Amino acid sequence: MRDYLIAPSILSADFARLGEEVDAVLAAGADIVHFDVMDNHYVPNLTIGPMVCKALRKHGVTAPIDVHLMVSPVDRLIGDFAEAGASYITFHPDASIHVDRSLQMIRDAGCKSGLVFNPHQGLEPLKYVLDKVDMVLLMSVNPGFGGQSFIPATLDKLREARTLIDASGYPIRLEVDGGVGTANIREIAAAGADTFVAGSAIFNAPDYRAVIDTLRAELAAA
Amino acid sequence: MRDYLIAPSILSADFARLGEEVDAVLAAGADIVHFDVMDNHYVPNLTIGPMVCKALRKHGVTAPIDVHLMVSPVDRLIGDFAEAGASYITFHPDASIHVDRSLQMIRDAGCKSGLVFNPHQGLEPLKYVLDKVDMVLLMSVNPGFGGQSFIPATLDKLREARTLIDASGYPIRLEVDGGVGTANIREIAAAGADTFVAGSAIFNAPDYRAVIDTLRAELAAA
Amino acid sequence: MRDYLIAPSILSADFARLGEEVDAVLAAGADIVHFDVMDNHYVPNLTIGPMVCKALRKHGVTAPIDVHLMVSPVDRLIGDFAEAGASYITFHPDASIHVDRSLQMIRDAGCKSGLVFNPHQGLEPLKYVLDKVDMVLLMSVNPGFGGQSFIPATLDKLREARTLIDASGYPIRLEVDGGVGTANIREIAAAGADTFVAGSAIFNAPDYRAVIDTLRAELAAA
Amino acid sequence: MRDYLIAPSILSADFARLGEEVDAVLAAGADIVHFDVMDNHYVPNLTIGPMVCKALRKHGVTAPIDVHLMVSPVDRLIGDFAEAGASYITFHPDASIHVDRSLQMIRDAGCKSGLVFNPHQGLEPLKYVLDKVDMVLLMSVNPGFGGQSFIPATLDKLREARTLIDASGYPIRLEVDGGVGTANIREIAAAGADTFVAGSAIFNAPDYRAVIDTLRAELAAA
Amino acid sequence: MRDYLIAPSILSADFARLGEEVDAVLAAGADIVHFDVMDNHYVPNLTIGPMVCKALRKHGVTAPIDVHLMVSPVDRLIGDFAEAGASYITFHPDASIHVDRSLQMIRDAGCKSGLVFNPHQGLEPLKYVLDKVDMVLLMSVNPGFGGQSFIPATLDKLREARTLIDASGYPIRLEVDGGVGTANIREIAAAGADTFVAGSAIFNAPDYRAVIDTLRAELAAA
Amino acid sequence: MRDYLIAPSILSADFARLGEEVDAVLAAGADIVHFDVMDNHYVPNLTIGPMVCKALRKHGVTAPIDVHLMVSPVDRLIGDFAEAGASYITFHPDASIHVDRSLQMIRDAGCKSGLVFNPHQGLEPLKYVLDKVDMVLLMSVNPGFGGQSFIPATLDKLREARTLIDASGYPIRLEVDGGVGTANIREIAAAGADTFVAGSAIFNAPDYRAVIDTLRAELAAA
Repeated sequence: MRDYLIAPSILSADFARLGEEVDAVLAAGADIVHFDVMDNHYVPNLTIGPMVCKALRKHGVTAPIDVHLMVSPVDRLIGDFAEAGASYITFHPDASIHVDRSLQMIRDAGCKSGLVFNPHQGLEPLKYVLDKVDMVLLMSVNPGFGGQSFIPATLDKLREARTLIDASGYPIRLEVDGGVGTANIREIAAAGADTFVAGSAIFNAPDYRAVIDTLRAELAAA
Repeated sequence: MRDYLIAPSILSADFARLGEEVDAVLAAGADIVHFDVMDNHYVPNLTIGPMVCKALRKHGVTAPIDVHLMVSPVDRLIGDFAEAGASYITFHPDASIHVDRSLQMIRDAGCKSGLVFNPHQGLEPLKYVLDKVDMVLLMSVNPGFGGQSFIPATLDKLREARTLIDASGYPIRLEVDGGVGTANIREIAAAGADTFVAGSAIFNAPDYRAVIDTLRAELAAA
Repeated sequence: MRDYLIAPSILSADFARLGEEVDAVLAAGADIVHFDVMDNHYVPNLTIGPMVCKALRKHGVTAPIDVHLMVSPVDRLIGDFAEAGASYITFHPDASIHVDRSLQMIRDAGCKSGLVFNPHQGLEPLKYVLDKVDMVLLMSVNPGFGGQSFIPATLDKLREARTLIDASGYPIRLEVDGGVGTANIREIAAAGADTFVAGSAIFNAPDYRAVIDTLRAELAAA
Repeated sequence: MRDYLIAPSILSADFARLGEEVDAVLAAGADIVHFDVMDNHYVPNLTIGPMVCKALRKHGVTAPIDVHLMVSPVDRLIGDFAEAGASYITFHPDASIHVDRSLQMIRDAGCKSGLVFNPHQGLEPLKYVLDKVDMVLLMSVNPGFGGQSFIPATLDKLREARTLIDASGYPIRLEVDGGVGTANIREIAAAGADTFVAGSAIFNAPDYRAVIDTLRAELAAA
Repeated sequence: MRDYLIAPSILSADFARLGEEVDAVLAAGADIVHFDVMDNHYVPNLTIGPMVCKALRKHGVTAPIDVHLMVSPVDRLIGDFAEAGASYITFHPDASIHVDRSLQMIRDAGCKSGLVFNPHQGLEPLKYVLDKVDMVLLMSVNPGFGGQSFIPATLDKLREARTLIDASGYPIRLEVDGGVGTANIREIAAAGADTFVAGSAIFNAPDYRAVIDTLRAELAAA
Repeated sequence: MRDYLIAPSILSADFARLGEEVDAVLAAGADIVHFDVMDNHYVPNLTIGPMVCKALRKHGVTAPIDVHLMVSPVDRLIGDFAEAGASYITFHPDASIHVDRSLQMIRDAGCKSGLVFNPHQGLEPLKYVLDKVDMVLLMSVNPGFGGQSFIPATLDKLREARTLIDASGYPIRLEVDGGVGTANIREIAAAGADTFVAGSAIFNAPDYRAVIDTLRAELAAA
């Protein structure tokens, strides 16, 4: 069995008491904190920036913070998020002209780096930078838009990504984000994912631990 | 004496427990909540968006929320912030091609509207839209950059804005943002301002009420 | 009495039989054809380009065609419209970095040149190029958006523009566009306008000549 | 034999009497109306927008209208064209950040959706959205520029697209646009195309029916 | 008599032996080196960047180098040119969102700062930053385009700028660039300019000293 | 053995005496002059434009000048560089919307054309334009940033490009740029490159000929 990670997206948490929410979800068994950054340019929404990340660290969060940049350009924010305590920083290849350079900047700043692929995008840009990537994130919905369900074509792309990663020999995590829940996480894991973003599935549930336990049980069965 | 309003900027608050912070500063005597939105395009920083505003309303904040958009373009976010519970929505005239239209959109969405002027900008764009503006905000530092002090040329611009507003006959608030504190608020009020954004001056103080009381005492002496 | 011109905007005409429509409105007494070009960037709409202008000329239209560019940038389209038979080409000063140069390009291409001002904009950019301008167009609604009525602040701006033009000694036309109809054209003319764009007021009427005659009667009384 | 469609591009029609032209070309045997939208940003030209499409519908055109968006961004115009009566709406994958989402928007608006590929572009972006696409359009000239002839490398790409489409099992049309005429349509059909845009080949001919008949005869022989 | 400075623009020098050219023009009596930077975005041309400035310093040039940025955005290049040995760095107010901040950056980097005005632009943006400006440059042609002559409206603008500068009490230089030569420098100086950019007038002359001497003689007579 | 070309990048030359430098490096055995154009938009640096190229031709340089455009957009500069005497003009496929068209423009202007690939980019865009390309340039560092060493993943990409080129039958040169020196040129040639850009390796050496001779000796051994 792979080493599976559950990554609740704090976009679904209560921003009026974010520290408490993050503490609760980690106490309930979550592994890492997924942090969605939108700039109203790469996606049609604006969410939260480096200051909020820094506040979580100051609040005492020690779990990995997995920053997903849905912004363009990306380079200036890499430095800000590294300084704010990010663990992972991932971005979209079409959001940076110099992808190889942006990946290097993330690692040089002491963080783990990653590339994110929109639903329609192929994995071609991954091929020549596999040695500079710690995480591959496949979007299974369109980022920045609400009310979507898991796009089935993601399963095939997960299998392709898994093959590429395994062939590379690098310890690259394979994350999936969008419409993931207890009903489909087993199938998604079977397709190769090892890191699972879940937003409303966790934060909208009355009992965070119960949902996370169910997700883990499903993964154990994968 | 004018009707003075103190508007703490939540950028200086603790984002891990924002509801609590806002409650505290309002309980300490603040009048309105100043909410700084940056998109990493109009200014080189990314802060907080509509979801955080909505969370404050859901948390129970009933005081006016004064949303300052340091973003470009502005129109899409106007709708999002109106729906998220904003009271005022202000933007920079050089951030929207159709300024008159954006002002109308804000009012049509049920909010109060305003224009913000950067330190180097003259008030010319205000002249033909005075009937569509509820607030004029003069930046006394450059928005989006840290560690600056009050730019003295703002005092003359406040006097000009005060003259324009009084001549118009419209009940337009005159707000100032940047480097405002107990040491200079009296002089700033004397120049015509009636609404005062203060960030670190309040949130970095051990006792919010003590600072706000001092600011009010200075205003009473203006 | 000034030399007044009525300029029907073909945006309100039937695009399936545009030649016929333009013939009809000219036969009904219109003086010039107003041609609104939108590019979905400067304004949120896309209308018609040089090919449609050229088709009108080929169809036999000899009246002046007054092309209003609601586009950014403007320089490439200046050449295309000049070649397509435009008489006037006007653009917005905030849509071109090199306004003086764009005005020169229009005249060098054999057309008459003009600047257009959005409702919130002051006339400052006009001051140093009065010798290169054949027309000043004041928008009395926000360009590119539907369903608006005449913005009253335009009247004061018309008076300012009239003063500037008369003081310059140049034979510059003063055009107004947006919400102009039989009910307000007299007041608008009294404020200084001499060229009147009317879209739906003319094309939505059952009898083009009747409306144009009424507009002229109002102007005669101005 | 495939079900072949002839799609005259109205860019070559007479815009002064467009309704009549479209009626004539349909009466002469054309199957669908090809409608080229250029915004002077994605391509260096500006043509016609939603109002012209709406006018054709109001004029009585009931044949499918096949709207090819050579614009960026695309999302706002999708709604406008759907409301204006478009049947197909196709766009370029490099003109929209969220291709999967834009395709969904088109179908949600009740239209058929498609992706267009410039001469140098590979078909990679098609792979994960085959279930959301009703048409694939291969450009055999560079869009937005005049006076070009059919680019031969399109034939190989047509064969690739045909293989992809047939393997998918979805009823996706394969359209080609640029330099198509009686001399090469047979070879193009043999490479896999089933929908043929022709502009000047049809509208510049003295007898529309004669050209269309010849095109069909060539297709019958393919 | 004012303290007049002659500033040859090296755009007209021979770039194959630039050090020698600059040495020659300084030996011939020029006061400062005018360095025109174009980025093919703010103006339609691309010229020379920081490396060329640095090479001149390394070559031994000790005269002031007056860098005119015809670029947008400006902030990143400010640091590069400061490090490359620039003395003055001037930019266009419409090329930077945060003009006050950019001026501060130039001074913080140890250089003298300035604002440049295109032919159609008024001096409004100067008003609130007079304490942060060491030079005002008025363009008397449109920057980035060749073959233009001195625009007469610049004379009035020079008089306005002179009045503003003198009233401010700050030691701000007033520079003019475009179409300046022996035939008009006296009139331009009389209008208030004290620093004169000349390109082809100097570098295209057989004897640099002769031209510069004539320019000085004209200035002495102003 | 292939026909190998050594292409010194003049970015590392002394810009104060560029003609002399280029003469020297050609006299020392270099084959072509590599000319790096950066616009501060496609890459974060601004270097040299068409005027510098023209000056080299006027100075007497007759060797091929190989212009690498690190700019976006590219089309306007193609004409300028062709007129300035460029031999090759290469650009990045993601810097031009209409790649096929830009390649045609280069050839129509009488130059040789090429595409450049950043470290992370695959060769997909090359596939349909092989008949329009005279050179393929693979970046082995990120363009526009200093102090980088050769990225090893370039070797595999060189092998892929070599296979594509040889299969095409076209006489396309395969160039590599970034971190090339005496220590690795043999391995790089073995992977398929035939044209080698070297900047500091040559210009920072005390004796240009010695370095170039060593590079050739290594190539002879490849």
